[in-house]
Amino acid sequence: MNVLEAIKTRKSVRQYLDKPVEDHHLETILEAARLAPSASNRQEWRFVVVRDRAQRRALMRAAQNQRFVGQAPIVIAACAQTDNHVMSCGQLSYPIDVSIAIDHLTLAATGLGLGTCWIGAFDEAAVKSLLRIPPEVRVVELVTLGYPTDPAPVPKRRLSMEEIVKYETWS
Amino acid sequence: MNVLEAIKTRKSVRQYLDKPVEDHHLETILEAARLAPSASNRQEWRFVVVRDRAQRRALMRAAQNQRFVGQAPIVIAACAQTDNHVMSCGQLSYPIDVSIAIDHLTLAATGLGLGTCWIGAFDEAAVKSLLRIPPEVRVVELVTLGYPTDPAPVPKRRLSMEEIVKYETWS
Repeated sequence: MNVLEAIKTRKSVRQYLDKPVEDHHLETILEAARLAPSASNRQEWRFVVVRDRAQRRALMRAAQNQRFVGQAPIVIAACAQTDNHVMSCGQLSYPIDVSIAIDHLTLAATGLGLGTCWIGAFDEAAVKSLLRIPPEVRVVELVTLGYPTDPAPVPKRRLSMEEIVKYETWS
Repeated sequence: MNVLEAIKTRKSVRQYLDKPVEDHHLETILEAARLAPSASNRQEWRFVVVRDRAQRRALMRAAQNQRFVGQAPIVIAACAQTDNHVMSCGQLSYPIDVSIAIDHLTLAATGLGLGTCWIGAFDEAAVKSLLRIPPEVRVVELVTLGYPTDPAPVPKRRLSMEEIVKYETWS
């Protein structure tokens, strides 16, 4: 799938078919994440891939009982093994760099006909306990992965170009 | 260009041809950013597109004198108009959401044969002053955009899959 088409087609999928994700597809998707750029090539991203049904249901409970978290055949905990490095612009590197890797992953999944959803509503301590994640590691997002029940793209409600783009100066 | 090919081809471009970026390409690239997902569809991203030569040179000075910042025909200040919303997982929304939009932008650019570079090494106060950006707005990254002198992909130095992916639990 063309990159622009993938960007236009991708949507947050919250209903999944009861159909496993092929190993070679999972590998392609993780490879897309692996190739992401990061500040000074720090590559702080780490991924815990969860397929076990009981663990997925426990993750669901840690994610405000969002049903699709238990329903998706795979849940990925996108983590950062980080020293909390701050760039000179004042931003922490790790949330930006892990997000780039997740975005690669979601677009690669879309290109393969798979659906994903970014999840920021979860209890980090509960997820860390469930997945035996060390104290110094952060869980930045959970991401569900699976075949969508409805593969059709929906129009996205977005601000207009005029509302988000300025030329030369802000004002 | 196929989405996986774009992910593999994208590299940080720090040498640009003296060739302007076509308006319709710039529009396609900004549209890719506009369609990004964000926490609760908050869409905090804002972009200031700078083409003026004197302003680009001033941005270069604000970005640790990295020469390519002044050389690229376009520099985009990727900003967040934000209320510093924190998701229940404990992460600020805006660095993640602006990063997703920038990642869309860089992959769309790659698909059109253009090069980009994420820049986190800059003086935010200086950039805000130059671009007349209001106090409450954050500048998350600068991004250069233009035709690369060398379009060939280079092998990326990355951690192995085994180093970044774990199954079922971290340990």
